[in-house]
Amino acid sequence: MSSEKRPVRVAMLGCGVVGSQVARLIQEQADDLAARVGAPVELVGIAVRRLGLARDVDLPADLFTTDAEALVGRDDVDVVVEVIGGIEPARTLILSALAHGASVVTANKALLAEHGASLFAAADEAGRDLYYEAAVAGAIPIVRPLRESLAGDRVTRVIGIVNGTTNFILDRMDSAGTGFTEALEEAQALGYAEADPTADVEGFDAAAKAAILASLAFHTRVTAGDVHREGIAEVTASDVASAREMGCVVKLLAICALEDGPDGPAVSARVHPAMIPRSHPLASVREAYNAVFVESEAAGQLMFYGPGAGGAPTASAVLGDLVTVARHRIAGVRGPRESAYADLPVLPMGSTETRYHVQIDVDDKAGVLAAVAQAFAEHDVSIQTVRQEGRGDDAQLVVVSHSASDADLAATVEAVRRMAFVREVSSVMRVEGAHD
Amino acid sequence: MSSEKRPVRVAMLGCGVVGSQVARLIQEQADDLAARVGAPVELVGIAVRRLGLARDVDLPADLFTTDAEALVGRDDVDVVVEVIGGIEPARTLILSALAHGASVVTANKALLAEHGASLFAAADEAGRDLYYEAAVAGAIPIVRPLRESLAGDRVTRVIGIVNGTTNFILDRMDSAGTGFTEALEEAQALGYAEADPTADVEGFDAAAKAAILASLAFHTRVTAGDVHREGIAEVTASDVASAREMGCVVKLLAICALEDGPDGPAVSARVHPAMIPRSHPLASVREAYNAVFVESEAAGQLMFYGPGAGGAPTASAVLGDLVTVARHRIAGVRGPRESAYADLPVLPMGSTETRYHVQIDVDDKAGVLAAVAQAFAEHDVSIQTVRQEGRGDDAQLVVVSHSASDADLAATVEAVRRMAFVREVSSVMRVEGAHD
Repeated sequence: MSSEKRPVRVAMLGCGVVGSQVARLIQEQADDLAARVGAPVELVGIAVRRLGLARDVDLPADLFTTDAEALVGRDDVDVVVEVIGGIEPARTLILSALAHGASVVTANKALLAEHGASLFAAADEAGRDLYYEAAVAGAIPIVRPLRESLAGDRVTRVIGIVNGTTNFILDRMDSAGTGFTEALEEAQALGYAEADPTADVEGFDAAAKAAILASLAFHTRVTAGDVHREGIAEVTASDVASAREMGCVVKLLAICALEDGPDGPAVSARVHPAMIPRSHPLASVREAYNAVFVESEAAGQLMFYGPGAGGAPTASAVLGDLVTVARHRIAGVRGPRESAYADLPVLPMGSTETRYHVQIDVDDKAGVLAAVAQAFAEHDVSIQTVRQEGRGDDAQLVVVSHSASDADLAATVEAVRRMAFVREVSSVMRVEGAHD
Repeated sequence: MSSEKRPVRVAMLGCGVVGSQVARLIQEQADDLAARVGAPVELVGIAVRRLGLARDVDLPADLFTTDAEALVGRDDVDVVVEVIGGIEPARTLILSALAHGASVVTANKALLAEHGASLFAAADEAGRDLYYEAAVAGAIPIVRPLRESLAGDRVTRVIGIVNGTTNFILDRMDSAGTGFTEALEEAQALGYAEADPTADVEGFDAAAKAAILASLAFHTRVTAGDVHREGIAEVTASDVASAREMGCVVKLLAICALEDGPDGPAVSARVHPAMIPRSHPLASVREAYNAVFVESEAAGQLMFYGPGAGGAPTASAVLGDLVTVARHRIAGVRGPRESAYADLPVLPMGSTETRYHVQIDVDDKAGVLAAVAQAFAEHDVSIQTVRQEGRGDDAQLVVVSHSASDADLAATVEAVRRMAFVREVSSVMRVEGAHD
């Protein structure tokens, strides 16, 4: 039907887990893609570090090159798909592709979270698209909904489970009662965690995604460095058990919120483990699945759920962008540009409103509860519940606060820690998604 | 920033529950809309049946007119928002708006499910957009994800809870153990069901949405008349209790699937109550919430969740479309057109593969189970489990089949019903979302 049309020519950078699936889909769905785009989609070159490696997909050898710079500089390339990951050479190659007149589809969260502003500026200067649905939550459509579907609404909060590795680990700790180390080893054995799990476990991956989500939701540039970040390595089996007692589950959450700042509206962005009630839609996100929960003024509560990683799911998101960008090339237009007009300040973590669940090992004597409650009051932190558990050497206070500034909460915990009858503050965890 | 730009002029048809919220958002979010669209968005007229009614939003009286035809015929209108609902006069007014050069945003599922083809053809002829995110599942972005995000993937199945009224009723029956009539009355008292609940309870509303979802997912025109439809009025407290015993919950599902037809790929579209396992993501959709579960070849399993109705949520979806369509007007372009290239046949219900849960009151004597099993086998229906419950006058067989054609299953049940020792087939319900 569109066989006489000039094809849309695609160059790909990288051919690993995601790239080989992108290439497979372009081949296998050629007829559907041609019908949906309005012209054939042709893969004209793939830049890789080493030639001759075995790939998960059968591709002509002459598609491959090690000269990525020459590939993105070709005159006949309409769209460059970047699935190398990391900052360099991805950044230089994307800038070069845009400068040479190609549109770009990328799955590179780290790059966007750090250099988004300059990349979007380069896309503007070139008059080309820079699309990145695959950079956040894999196959789950979340970039397009935030950028387009909710463009007439006011998003107030985004809470995401955006890292499959840590969700798998925390889910195992919750369902099997195992400790962190054991759950991590299981995740590694099953291929859900890398040999060096730092980027996932310490929250770097989630923080990059939080930066992208906050930028989209609040029309404000937020970088990975703006995101407060705590990983899950300190989460203990006892924390998970305490959460369970409260009817909660521990998740690593990426939370982006519109806040009342000192000078008007502001944005907060943070990644940390938190307890959420089991009745919350995010609580049922099991194993390595991802989900993004969005609250907005008019729409209310929305959730987007699906596989957050993996070759084929990520490739699905890349292909969706590829179809859109290819349609734009044929029509000679662009999609919506970066929207950063609101330019809101990003609050430091201390000013962010949170709630704490605090477990305190105390001496079992009269007046302890009152003294601890007094410490909370002195720091302007209102207590929602406090209960005393155990007797003698096992005496424990469990306090759940109302919302307060994170700085006031941290100072409260510090003050409690110094009290004479406090043996140990055995667990501090934030509580999210519950009624205040 | 864009104050000197010519505004995008919007006319609205209808100002009821949804329309008044659309008008409110256009007013309250004026600055944000201007920044996101690239020009101010101005509401220039609202057609209503009667002037002078109290509205949920404060609007200048001179915006209102009873002459809808004159409003859509105005030369200065860029976008017409249709929130009247129903077939006429909505159909004629949308065609007139397109013919006069306006783009159209509509929330009208019934109209699209019946007259989609002619409306999309009119949009093509006019070179204008016809957007309809609000027509399916209210605030939940599902049209755009199917039309764009998954455009590079192959969707194989869509299962939706797309009617809030029936989900509320079934949820009450499940959680409170009430019968259908009592739950319906509660839904009516709380405003979740209309005085005449036919469109919801009998599945007409869900069938219209199923037609739209199937059209989008499979690039094929599917009308409401193509959708097999069964409502929930026959669902009994005992069906719900049986589902619970099986670890399932009863939901009214809109199911659209890519099937192996007699002459190649085909589509099925159906709306009926069904049991789904409580572990399925759709099972946790409570009260009047909606959700759409999508399976595709590369992305795997995705779910989109949120409020499926209501003034503000539906208005959020309308506004998202309005922003996109307004951007297109300014850029002088259109979004993706109707995609019906695949043109797959729609299978009749009898050819659709389903599974049945059948409860049979039987005489308590030897050989009954074997005879019933034999009846299933004779109709080529494989049994997954059969269990005998109760003794004497309460003897009962509960059969769960494997996948088979709906016609074979229906014929099996008919044959069982005629057996001498069968007192009654007390419940027949399809089972979805479980491993076969």
